[in-house]
Amino acid sequence: MMAKALLPEFWTEILVPVCAVVGIVFSLFQWYVVSCVKLTADRGGEHEGDGKNGHDDYLIEEEEGVHDQSVVAKCAEIQTAISEGATSFLFTEYKYVGVFMVFFAAVIFLFLGSVQGFSTKSQPCTYDKTRTCKPALATAVFSTISFVLGAVTSVLSGFLGMKIATYANARTTLEARRGVGKAFIVAFRSGAVMGFLLAANGLLVLYITINLFKIYYGDDWEGLFESITGYGLGGSSMALFGRVGGGIYTKAADVGADLVGKVERNIPEDDPRNPAVIADNVGDNVGDIAGMGSDLFGSYAESSCAALVVASISSFGINHDFTGMLFPLLISSMGILVCLITTLFATDISEIKAVKEIEPALKNQLIISTVIMTVGIALVSWTGLPSSFTIYNFGTQKVVKSWELFLCVAVGLWAGLSIGFVTEYYTSNAYSPVQDVADSCRTGAATNVIFGLALGYKSVIIPIFAIGVSIFVSFSFAAMYGVAVAALGMLSTIATGLAIDAYGPISDNAGGIAEMAGMSHRIRERTDALDAAGNTTAAIGKGFAIGSAALVSLALFGAFVSRAGIERVDVLTPKVVIGLLVGAMLPYWFSAMTMKSVGSAALKMVEEVRRQFNTIPGLMEGTAKPDYATCVKISTDASIKEMIPPGCLVMLTPLIVGFFFGVETLSGVLAGSLISGVQIAISASNTGGAWDNAKKYIEAGASEHARSLGPKGSEPHKAAVIGDTIGDPLKDTSGPSLNILIKLMAVESLVFAPFFATHGGFLFNIFS
Amino acid sequence: MMAKALLPEFWTEILVPVCAVVGIVFSLFQWYVVSCVKLTADRGGEHEGDGKNGHDDYLIEEEEGVHDQSVVAKCAEIQTAISEGATSFLFTEYKYVGVFMVFFAAVIFLFLGSVQGFSTKSQPCTYDKTRTCKPALATAVFSTISFVLGAVTSVLSGFLGMKIATYANARTTLEARRGVGKAFIVAFRSGAVMGFLLAANGLLVLYITINLFKIYYGDDWEGLFESITGYGLGGSSMALFGRVGGGIYTKAADVGADLVGKVERNIPEDDPRNPAVIADNVGDNVGDIAGMGSDLFGSYAESSCAALVVASISSFGINHDFTGMLFPLLISSMGILVCLITTLFATDISEIKAVKEIEPALKNQLIISTVIMTVGIALVSWTGLPSSFTIYNFGTQKVVKSWELFLCVAVGLWAGLSIGFVTEYYTSNAYSPVQDVADSCRTGAATNVIFGLALGYKSVIIPIFAIGVSIFVSFSFAAMYGVAVAALGMLSTIATGLAIDAYGPISDNAGGIAEMAGMSHRIRERTDALDAAGNTTAAIGKGFAIGSAALVSLALFGAFVSRAGIERVDVLTPKVVIGLLVGAMLPYWFSAMTMKSVGSAALKMVEEVRRQFNTIPGLMEGTAKPDYATCVKISTDASIKEMIPPGCLVMLTPLIVGFFFGVETLSGVLAGSLISGVQIAISASNTGGAWDNAKKYIEAGASEHARSLGPKGSEPHKAAVIGDTIGDPLKDTSGPSLNILIKLMAVESLVFAPFFATHGGFLFNIFS
Repeated sequence: MMAKALLPEFWTEILVPVCAVVGIVFSLFQWYVVSCVKLTADRGGEHEGDGKNGHDDYLIEEEEGVHDQSVVAKCAEIQTAISEGATSFLFTEYKYVGVFMVFFAAVIFLFLGSVQGFSTKSQPCTYDKTRTCKPALATAVFSTISFVLGAVTSVLSGFLGMKIATYANARTTLEARRGVGKAFIVAFRSGAVMGFLLAANGLLVLYITINLFKIYYGDDWEGLFESITGYGLGGSSMALFGRVGGGIYTKAADVGADLVGKVERNIPEDDPRNPAVIADNVGDNVGDIAGMGSDLFGSYAESSCAALVVASISSFGINHDFTGMLFPLLISSMGILVCLITTLFATDISEIKAVKEIEPALKNQLIISTVIMTVGIALVSWTGLPSSFTIYNFGTQKVVKSWELFLCVAVGLWAGLSIGFVTEYYTSNAYSPVQDVADSCRTGAATNVIFGLALGYKSVIIPIFAIGVSIFVSFSFAAMYGVAVAALGMLSTIATGLAIDAYGPISDNAGGIAEMAGMSHRIRERTDALDAAGNTTAAIGKGFAIGSAALVSLALFGAFVSRAGIERVDVLTPKVVIGLLVGAMLPYWFSAMTMKSVGSAALKMVEEVRRQFNTIPGLMEGTAKPDYATCVKISTDASIKEMIPPGCLVMLTPLIVGFFFGVETLSGVLAGSLISGVQIAISASNTGGAWDNAKKYIEAGASEHARSLGPKGSEPHKAAVIGDTIGDPLKDTSGPSLNILIKLMAVESLVFAPFFATHGGFLFNIFS
Repeated sequence: MMAKALLPEFWTEILVPVCAVVGIVFSLFQWYVVSCVKLTADRGGEHEGDGKNGHDDYLIEEEEGVHDQSVVAKCAEIQTAISEGATSFLFTEYKYVGVFMVFFAAVIFLFLGSVQGFSTKSQPCTYDKTRTCKPALATAVFSTISFVLGAVTSVLSGFLGMKIATYANARTTLEARRGVGKAFIVAFRSGAVMGFLLAANGLLVLYITINLFKIYYGDDWEGLFESITGYGLGGSSMALFGRVGGGIYTKAADVGADLVGKVERNIPEDDPRNPAVIADNVGDNVGDIAGMGSDLFGSYAESSCAALVVASISSFGINHDFTGMLFPLLISSMGILVCLITTLFATDISEIKAVKEIEPALKNQLIISTVIMTVGIALVSWTGLPSSFTIYNFGTQKVVKSWELFLCVAVGLWAGLSIGFVTEYYTSNAYSPVQDVADSCRTGAATNVIFGLALGYKSVIIPIFAIGVSIFVSFSFAAMYGVAVAALGMLSTIATGLAIDAYGPISDNAGGIAEMAGMSHRIRERTDALDAAGNTTAAIGKGFAIGSAALVSLALFGAFVSRAGIERVDVLTPKVVIGLLVGAMLPYWFSAMTMKSVGSAALKMVEEVRRQFNTIPGLMEGTAKPDYATCVKISTDASIKEMIPPGCLVMLTPLIVGFFFGVETLSGVLAGSLISGVQIAISASNTGGAWDNAKKYIEAGASEHARSLGPKGSEPHKAAVIGDTIGDPLKDTSGPSLNILIKLMAVESLVFAPFFATHGGFLFNIFS
């Protein structure tokens, strides 16, 4: 009998929900602070005395137009339009996806229930045949319930994120009148609201579900945590539709607005005369905010589920060491506390005094949280784990020491940071790669695209090595449990990551509102400065999402293989090889669908925007208002219609392959899509980010070199705009959706593993 | 004791060289026919009476300018310039690569010799320990020799191909004066010269080498065919540098010439005023002809070697069934005869009577050769194989029937054809995918690029299924031997494939010469019609090359695994997983290098071309001649310099991984690069091909829809030109080089397998 963890079960049961509640309270507090910026026209000079003067950068503190109440009303009006558009889209999206979810919940119940012919009798356990486990029907029922819970939590995460973002954007604009530092704090706090709410909410729901399910499952930990995997599947399925639907929405509107507005009509971005401008701003909120929220929640749910299901067949399960078993949740709880401290560094301890301090401030958030979290992980590993325990390693047992597991979590955490830095290097216009891309615009759009694609391909190298090292270390120490906790380590600072991520689109929207409300050029400059930093952090956030997705999928893949009873996945068998080949093809198929969707939707948008410019008299002169609603409708309809085929591709492939070709082929498909999808996702995100910032580099004209390429409207700038437009679907639609593809197929296979193990390989069975 | 093949050994020894010689003689005959088109100015009306009249298409038979002797002289002059440029580049390239080859030959000798400490004593065989095999030192010596032979044959193939092409291009131009049908025959015959020469030469050298080595090896078939694998390695290493160097050369010149000439100066393609025009035409010959010749020769050599080395440990080896053992060579011999008959269909049996018959005529070549070859394979399988035999299947023996092996070869052959058709569908402007891409040019370059990328991604789906089915069938029937012969099946009609492939650049050059020689618009129209068909067939050729590369690498991978003594390649081990991940990343790294190289070289070319336009007075007016030589030098220098890093990446990766991380990691890397590289290669080739033909579609204006997008110089056309330029490095540099990457790493690992098995895994050994 091995030792148990230091931390008694009682305290674990207290600490996890307490940390979750602390996160939620902190999030509500931040919301309260943001809400102090009033959006009603009775504000007057409330904060008048706060402004410190004497800084050399006028963007920072020089107040401008603070008393203009008509602007406040205008901002409020625009915010309402954006918020209503986003809400209406999300409701439409959730309605369609809801139908799918109900259907899929039925599939889960029927397929898993059929494993033992819907028998209500208990059965011998999969791994330890001497013990008795709950019937397959129970797994079917509870998997379905946790699937629905995961989906609902995901919807909630995305929806709340959108609400917060649309609540914050106009407030950021208004604060920008009082200086860029003030605006930064509002945008950042709003991001923090979203980050903490999502992280804490996900943890709390998971914790409560586990404890409720435990009432039924009691001693059967294997059954308990296998049912819990439905939570990950629900979260991720919802995320898929959110990302794809939102991604198509936002990029159709963005590309459509830019192609006519910027390129043909030569009017600025977010100009209120552009009929697609509201749709564009709505898109940021439904794609970059709601979609990303669902996505990262899905990652978090899946990595927790992967770790839990692998741990259920370890000595934790056999020894009933609840604290050890809940180690993944303890890590997340610690993560919330660490991120809370980290946030204080940005909001209270240091202060933004110059524009050039914004990006470092955001980067410091990552560094600070990683450093503190390393200590946190050590603490949790020391108290939350027995000094040594055994885990299941594909047929053999493996003894793991607690310090080894500490290393597994830590390697994931630090790999995340290094991926973040590499991403920054390749997508920030402070470094040579993006500057080279900008320079290549001299010879036109073609060289810009060639250099941009090459940059994206090249940016894959170091992240892959970082992921490779994490996998090697964690896999060698603690097999798939190690990989799962490494993923969890990478996601442990998710609250901070999300805060930084959400900050970007909020600033972007703030800029849009400033432009539409007709605020002065200098206000726009301030929001642009915020937005530029947001672009890079968005790319960093995507890097994290992809890196963790790779680790999560591998862990889920390992859990699937164990649960399906496969002993090895040998590349030297025809079934596995064709699985690998076809699996590696899926990301291409998926990307083809999503990119084509964005393209077609953008074409429709272009036609509508052109039509309005041509038929509405006085539109270009600003005397007539464009018909925003039609553009919103085009984006909505297109994204709802176009998200279905790629969604079905991802959701149905594991079912079809598993049922017709069996678990060996399916394991090949999962491995293939994982190793191929990671590369495309990283390169697509970074290529898109680099093009975007190359364009911004030329527009900002901050250096001699940049000015030689500009100004706006020059030939190099036009070439840069083309690159930026091409990058849009790559970085915001197909790229980030690929994370979900690889995770979702893995978690779905894991949930359906008992079904495939029983009924799978239909085609091969009838032929032999 | 199992039965032997029907065909006695004596006849096999006769038939193989006879077929090879027949191929060479046929090739020389075609060359003679081409040479009847005189390039000297004393021709007069020699063939005057041949012209049949009465066809409705003036392109076909209406003669024009046949008697203008100054044009002939001009053509001869341009041809000489192109030929000299190409020869000088190839010599420079071969000089540098020669140094590398000598170095690498030394590495092969030293590494393989060190396996048993350069002992000259015989050793127990790897698979059958009761028998005695030749010492490792002999393998070292003979592998080195066959490596050098492979490299020399590859050089010869590329060089001869280039010579033939530069001999034929001006002749095609001159014949174009006498009608498009006449010109087609010249271009096609010249392609056939190259196809048959390469196929027959490769076969003959391999046959002679085997027989010479056999004098030493005698009974030790395993040692004999393991040494022969050096032939594949030599062929492929040379091909790598040829493809990469030639690819960078041709695209730097092409992109550079287009960016200034077409886009900035608005002068037509191949205009003699463009200083980069000669470099561009040289590029076609060193890249598309010499590079491709080396590439396909490499594929052929490797698939033969893979089949032979796998067969050496089958019952052929044990039974000394030389006919059975040489089954791969018999297939290739049959292939030469089949292609010979097929060629007659194009040159003698049918006749081109209208422009629209060109593409079907080329396509029919593929269909006819595939159909006849199916019968040929059946014949060879029936006579050249015992009715059943056993092969080695990773530790177990597997009995294979001759009809099963027939199916393996046939499935490869037909999979090749289906890949060809899919490629045609996605790259020919006769079908909707390319027309959609052309249509997206309406909204500018950005949507064109988005649609083009999506098209490339989508075009991967069916070829991957075709390859997957081939692998599944052949692997299930006859393990890795099945896969190897499936690859051979796909390449069995290589002579026809190469003929069609080479036809494209010859026609392209013919058009260039017509333009430069100042021939009339109608002549140019005729060569353009030839060239348009060539674009699609080039894409089809690339499809074949990639498909066969996938099969070849898998077979080589299997042979490597056997030879390295690995029992399984289990994805559920950390070493294999990180190998897969890193392997899947390599094609991205490699593409980043090659695309960046093309981009940088093109930028240099652009600057030089601009400089000449700006500084040479009278250049635009046509009164002064540009300085062609400087442009040729820029392309030469850039490609020599830039081909080294990607070349080293591919050549060194297996050595580094195998030596430091061991054979399990290396097998992961090979599998990863295979499954990821195939997808990128297919999508890159097809995207590029589609953009090229979308542009041609708008230029040709053959339909109502096409005319609505044109004419040349319209906004949609400009957008199409940008897409075409981006596609150039994708389809002609990085895409086709990826085949070589995956094959070369596999064959290199196979050659060095005994070394890695003995000394590999250095890093893991010191840590454990």
